[in-house]
Amino acid sequence: MAKMLKKNYLMTPGPTPVPVDILLEGAKDTIHHRTPQYLDIQNKALENLKYLFQTKNLVYTLVSSGTGAMEAAVANLVSKGDKVIAVNGGKFGERWCELCEAYDANLVEIDIEWGKYVRAEQIKDALEKNPDTKVVFTTLSETSTGVVNPIKEIAQIVKNTQAVLVVDAISGLLAEPLKMDEWNVDVVVCGVQKGFMMPPGLAMISLSEKAMKLVEKSNNPRYYFDLRAYKKNYPDSPYTPAVNLMYQLLKSTDMLKEEGIENVWDRHRIMAEATRAGVQALGLELFAENPGNVLTAIKIPQGVDGGKLIKFLRDDWGVVFTGGQSQLKGKIIRIAHLGYMSKFDIITAISALEMSLEKFGFKVELGKGVKAAEEVFVKEGV
Amino acid sequence: MAKMLKKNYLMTPGPTPVPVDILLEGAKDTIHHRTPQYLDIQNKALENLKYLFQTKNLVYTLVSSGTGAMEAAVANLVSKGDKVIAVNGGKFGERWCELCEAYDANLVEIDIEWGKYVRAEQIKDALEKNPDTKVVFTTLSETSTGVVNPIKEIAQIVKNTQAVLVVDAISGLLAEPLKMDEWNVDVVVCGVQKGFMMPPGLAMISLSEKAMKLVEKSNNPRYYFDLRAYKKNYPDSPYTPAVNLMYQLLKSTDMLKEEGIENVWDRHRIMAEATRAGVQALGLELFAENPGNVLTAIKIPQGVDGGKLIKFLRDDWGVVFTGGQSQLKGKIIRIAHLGYMSKFDIITAISALEMSLEKFGFKVELGKGVKAAEEVFVKEGV
Repeated sequence: MAKMLKKNYLMTPGPTPVPVDILLEGAKDTIHHRTPQYLDIQNKALENLKYLFQTKNLVYTLVSSGTGAMEAAVANLVSKGDKVIAVNGGKFGERWCELCEAYDANLVEIDIEWGKYVRAEQIKDALEKNPDTKVVFTTLSETSTGVVNPIKEIAQIVKNTQAVLVVDAISGLLAEPLKMDEWNVDVVVCGVQKGFMMPPGLAMISLSEKAMKLVEKSNNPRYYFDLRAYKKNYPDSPYTPAVNLMYQLLKSTDMLKEEGIENVWDRHRIMAEATRAGVQALGLELFAENPGNVLTAIKIPQGVDGGKLIKFLRDDWGVVFTGGQSQLKGKIIRIAHLGYMSKFDIITAISALEMSLEKFGFKVELGKGVKAAEEVFVKEGV
Repeated sequence: MAKMLKKNYLMTPGPTPVPVDILLEGAKDTIHHRTPQYLDIQNKALENLKYLFQTKNLVYTLVSSGTGAMEAAVANLVSKGDKVIAVNGGKFGERWCELCEAYDANLVEIDIEWGKYVRAEQIKDALEKNPDTKVVFTTLSETSTGVVNPIKEIAQIVKNTQAVLVVDAISGLLAEPLKMDEWNVDVVVCGVQKGFMMPPGLAMISLSEKAMKLVEKSNNPRYYFDLRAYKKNYPDSPYTPAVNLMYQLLKSTDMLKEEGIENVWDRHRIMAEATRAGVQALGLELFAENPGNVLTAIKIPQGVDGGKLIKFLRDDWGVVFTGGQSQLKGKIIRIAHLGYMSKFDIITAISALEMSLEKFGFKVELGKGVKAAEEVFVKEGV
């Protein structure tokens, strides 16, 4: 029987595909971190990050996964017993809640059905009922559901209160518009294995002056993630930085800066639209009420074993989608369009769906999904 | 004027030189971490780590610098108000003290003059005076001074008490003998940018059953470093692992396993002896009372500006030594012989000293230090 070469098509919401130029940057000779030569590299990358975060604030890098930056936000902003609001509309909103509980915050949880988005009005109500709130924890792109939340509107509400607004933009930054300063977002956390097109290992956090005031006051135990040490040492690092990942971060941020942030956002918007058009043309249903640009979550049609479909695509064809997490296990398939991707990656994703779905009991017309995706690209003139 | 090519000679106690084969391993295609393909790689690396830690206990990897693993030890073992003993004989012993204070431990500090080592007898006395001690924090190789501490003897004392013994082996593991199980060491923390010959970004921690009992009891706030989550997910990771660094860790641990742990220790012992012989033959004085195999600290001779010497060697010849930290700034030069190094790296280091010292006001006989180092290698038959 004929057999095709199996290549690696990473269509997951982190890690995302890494350009060879960035991979090879990480293979450069490791230099010592306490040298002007290294500091120059880190400083340039940190300057680029300000532009990509759309802020004049400092951006700190942490050697950790994105969760480390989330913990840095909680540990540095919250003191034991502080009133905080967190939006739980998926696995990563849930993580904010778990972190707030680990740090003994007085947590007001806004519970959103997974797949729905949080209305700015709900934040407003919660803040009015809890005027002593110190911090509001939200998620730009809820990776577990594909939902994008209206951060711009939420920020308009929070800015008029004493509370600081923290946004988990780990998967969302670069894929969704986010203008930290213009929108009055106080804290943005992110990871590099998403829109930054890098292998995982670094996280980032930026804080407004309003937020930095809480950092000085927090009395929670912390050391490695104590942002006072990062501020004091900036642009240097208090602990050994991941030298080779920093080479890659400079390369990545140079590439993104050259592309231009509006182009980066627009590229993701178009890829998301094309993906939605493609899967809907195949008769599949979207899961998210307000689907964002990071990934498209599809409801698994009746009669199809989603777990087997995902495993088949990964192991036989090298096309890596992800399934649902926690309560969504077996209910959705997630196709990411994030980071180093372009139109033909979307075509590949839709084609893989078309050619595989029938094997698993869902009838499709071959080419129909691809056609719908192509129409989006042609209409956008890309 | 003739000019030589400037190559990068990393003679620093982390990062250390990275073999090209390990660098290129990190440039391999990034795969998704929630796949059996990735888990197989991580599982193999973790198995290799057990051998290199000389333990049957699980070894966990953390995406962080070594300090992250130190914090994991403190946050997981210590509850607020717990009596702990920490040895402060340098910058990294001091870090244990800072961490214990950040977590509100009841700290008994054993203060050692920097450059001296801690006697097992001092630990014994402190434990007798403080029988309620929960944890003893020590350092195998104190990177700031070049001292190696007698962990084997200390472990003999601690094992007969209720306390658990934690060893910062971040720079020491692989360079100094350490037999976790045989010696009854309860907790070992390490980083990859030292003996493991990797770019920085991963830390490791392993705990005995005695220590794991404290982990279950600790009531300190923690999340990212909460070892209960790592235990529950083992060999998988609770948060996104640094995929490409894990490729490198598998390669590194495969190489070290093939070399054999006794050979790795012996290689470091011989390089350290040759370095000491070389610098002493040049009339330089060693700083450490009990110098270890990680690095050789040399007192800066009267009249020499150590900072300028180090800067010259780094910027003009590419030979990267480090100076003293904190109270030792301007007092010592540290030459590391750690990780991916062999005899000709030592010859290079001594030669660089010989050729540069006179420029900075210290008279040496060219070739004399190299000769002494060579004699060690020839005597050892390597």
